[in-house]
Formats: sequence, structure tokens, C-alpha cells
Amino acid sequence: MASDRVTFRRARRPEHKQQRHDAILAAARSQGLRKGVRNVSLADIASEVGVHKSALLRYFETREEIYLHLMAEGWQEWVEGMRGELEQLPVGSVDEVAGVIARTLADRPLLCDLMMHTPLTLERNVSIESVRAYKLATLASLAEGTALLCRVLPGLTEADVVDLMVVVTGVAAALWQAAHPPPALVALYAEDPQLAHGQVEFTPSLQRVVEVTLRGLLSRLSGPSGPPAQGEEPGVVDELPG
Amino acid sequence: MASDRVTFRRARRPEHKQQRHDAILAAARSQGLRKGVRNVSLADIASEVGVHKSALLRYFETREEIYLHLMAEGWQEWVEGMRGELEQLPVGSVDEVAGVIARTLADRPLLCDLMMHTPLTLERNVSIESVRAYKLATLASLAEGTALLCRVLPGLTEADVVDLMVVVTGVAAALWQAAHPPPALVALYAEDPQLAHGQVEFTPSLQRVVEVTLRGLLSRLSGPSGPPAQGEEPGVVDELPG
Repeated sequence: MASDRVTFRRARRPEHKQQRHDAILAAARSQGLRKGVRNVSLADIASEVGVHKSALLRYFETREEIYLHLMAEGWQEWVEGMRGELEQLPVGSVDEVAGVIARTLADRPLLCDLMMHTPLTLERNVSIESVRAYKLATLASLAEGTALLCRVLPGLTEADVVDLMVVVTGVAAALWQAAHPPPALVALYAEDPQLAHGQVEFTPSLQRVVEVTLRGLLSRLSGPSGPPAQGEEPGVVDELPG
Repeated sequence: MASDRVTFRRARRPEHKQQRHDAILAAARSQGLRKGVRNVSLADIASEVGVHKSALLRYFETREEIYLHLMAEGWQEWVEGMRGELEQLPVGSVDEVAGVIARTLADRPLLCDLMMHTPLTLERNVSIESVRAYKLATLASLAEGTALLCRVLPGLTEADVVDLMVVVTGVAAALWQAAHPPPALVALYAEDPQLAHGQVEFTPSLQRVVEVTLRGLLSRLSGPSGPPAQGEEPGVVDELPG
């Protein structure tokens, strides 16, 4: 009987639904890590789960919703990953904070890959409810991250951390793609010394940029116009409060 | 006769070939500006030029090569656009340099849109020769931009300008996508005050980040560990050379 086959295929009990849901996310995660998010289709995910594409669409609207879900999860897991290290740092450890941010991102390649896909495609091919859930989840992660960072660097305001995250996510997204070039670009770098420096090293580049950003944000404490630039009179540097 | 038809359709004289080449780039430019690069297919470009897709492939390898060409052109035209303004600035004008970078990019929406597509797709779907030509062209533009920036801010090294450009391109790419959200996201921002601040303003956000980056890069002149951070003894600030 046709309805029996449908019953057989569908997960009807809540714990089975949750298992199926988790299996879809796990398949999208492993496919994304193996092939790069750009190359993973809904059919690839379905095939790894061992179901038909249409079965996936009972759990998620689109391929993009699956990855947007993993992006929200990635943000939360990243902030949790930074927590232990940031909580150990003495107040004022600028370089060490930059190191923690760069290393914890380097350890999360799927998150770095998703950072470029989120504004470009993931937020565009989902319902308003999915994008709302995603935005609320990342705001919560951002608030937790802000508290962790402001404890180590109390000179940072909440607005500073938003600017810092704009830099971190924009630069990590671009560096991750540049650090994982396609074969043609690898061959070009190998044969052309003039272009070899195009081969980016993700962690040191990101760490340097984050450190520069933190110094720039904190330098505003030295006075309204920051440290003296060349050709200007050195400004009066106020004593910082203890 | 079949061969007559082919002769009729092909541009055989060099000036006609150049006209056809330029018409393809102009069509890709106007389609990209109108619909966003993500939504433009090779067929769209062919239709605007008024030829069949296969005719385009005598001039460019792929849709991606057309846009990679426009990206190289965009870099060069952007540096030329900054030249007049940067050459007027007195030495040490940090905030003004940030303003010039942000405004000249805001005036070039196609370049900002292409910044995210370049590492993600454009460099991946072209031959090694096309990507080499692109990289050499952008290196030349970068060298010109470096000379312009180091005249105004002589404290910047060439390596500093590379880091600055990593920030500028990564952040401009991300902010441009965020500043041009799809209708569902616009509706979400309108109905949910908690999320309304997700609506990014491109120029002020980019200007702030560039200013912070420049201050961070220049603050390293103040000493090997930069300006004093909270909880540390204020360091000795060396006199800057005139």
C-alpha cells in the first residue's frame, strides 16, 4: 500500500525526527568541509544521508537554510571555543587576544568558508523566519563574545566590538578563500615568483590584521585624534585611568 | 551558403573585434550594476549585446573571465579616481585618507560587488593565463596605490599597505553585500527593531574601519608594543622623526 511506504520513510516520532534533522546537518557539515560549501548541492547532502532530496525538504526549506543553521551553530561554538582562552588572559593582552581570535578561526574551516557564503547566498534563499532566527542567534553569540573581549580589553566599547567583528569576519572570509586557491592558481603561484606572494597564510595574516585593528580601536583612548601622525605636532597624551 | 552566414556574423577586422570586445564588457557592466553580479548569466550578456552566447566565447573564455576583466579594470580606475584627491592632501591626513578610500569605493558599486565574487568564483572558472593577467594588472594598480598612500602617510610601509588593502577589500566586499540586502531582509529589519541595526550604512562603516586600521598601523611607530593598554604601565613614547 502506498501509504505504508510513506509511513516507512517518514520519521514520525519526535526522537526520530531529531535524529534525521541532526543527520542532515552532519552530512552538510562533512560535505562542506570535504568539497567546499560552494560545491555542495542539496542532492549531495541527501545522498550522504541516504534519502531522497524531497525528504530533506520536510526538515529544511533549502540547501541555504541548512548552511545558515550551521553558520549560527558555528558562531556559537566559536565563541565557546574562545571563552576558555580569553578568560585566562590578563587585562590588556592585545596581542594575545589577536592570537586567540586568529587561531580559533583557523581551527574552524567550515565557519570561515560559510562567512563568505552567508551574505552572498545563504541569507538570500531562505524565508524571513529563518533569517530572523539566524540573526537573533548570532546577536546572542555576539553579546557573549563582546562580554569576553571587554573583560580583557576594557577600553573597547560595544560599538568597537561590532567594528572589530566587521573586520574579523570580512577579512577571515576573504583570507580563507585566498588561502584555499583552486589548482590553476596553485600552479600559477608555483611557476611565477612575482605572483608567489599571492599565496596567503591564513593565521598570521588574520592575526596581524586583528592586532592592528585592536591597536587602532584602543589608540582612540589616547585622545580624540589618536596618536600623532607624521608631519603633525605630537599631541598631548592624557594619562590613562589605572 | 553557410560559410557566408558565419562571415556575416563574425567581426573580422581588428577595429570591429575591438568594438565587439568593448560591447561585451559594457553589457556585463550594465547588467551587473542593474541586477547584481550574482544574477547575471552569459546568456544575459549575449542578449544585451544582441548576439548568441557562442559568439561571446570567441572573445572571452567564460562569464567569469568577463567579470575578472572588469575587476582588473575596476582596480585601475579606482586608483586613478583616488589619485586627484590623495595628491591634494597634506602629509599626515589620516582621517581624510580614510574618507577618500571609503567615498571612492562607495562611488564604484560594481567594483564592490565584484570584490566578493573574485575569490569565490571569478578566479576559479578561468584559465591560468587569465588569472595571471588579472594578478599582474592588480599588482600594478596596488603599486600605484601604495605610492599615493605612502606620500600622504610616510609612516606606512609597503607591507602595511598590503595589510590595509586586505582590510579594505575584505570589509568593503562584506559591507557592500550587507548594505544591499534582499527584500526579505529589508522587511525583517523594518518589522523588528532589535534587528534594525543590521541594516548597514556602507560609507560611514567602511570609513570608520579604514581609519581604525590606519591608526593601528601607524601606532606601531610609537614603539614595538604600540600604545599602552589598560592595566599596563604606560610605555615611553619615542619622539617621531620630523
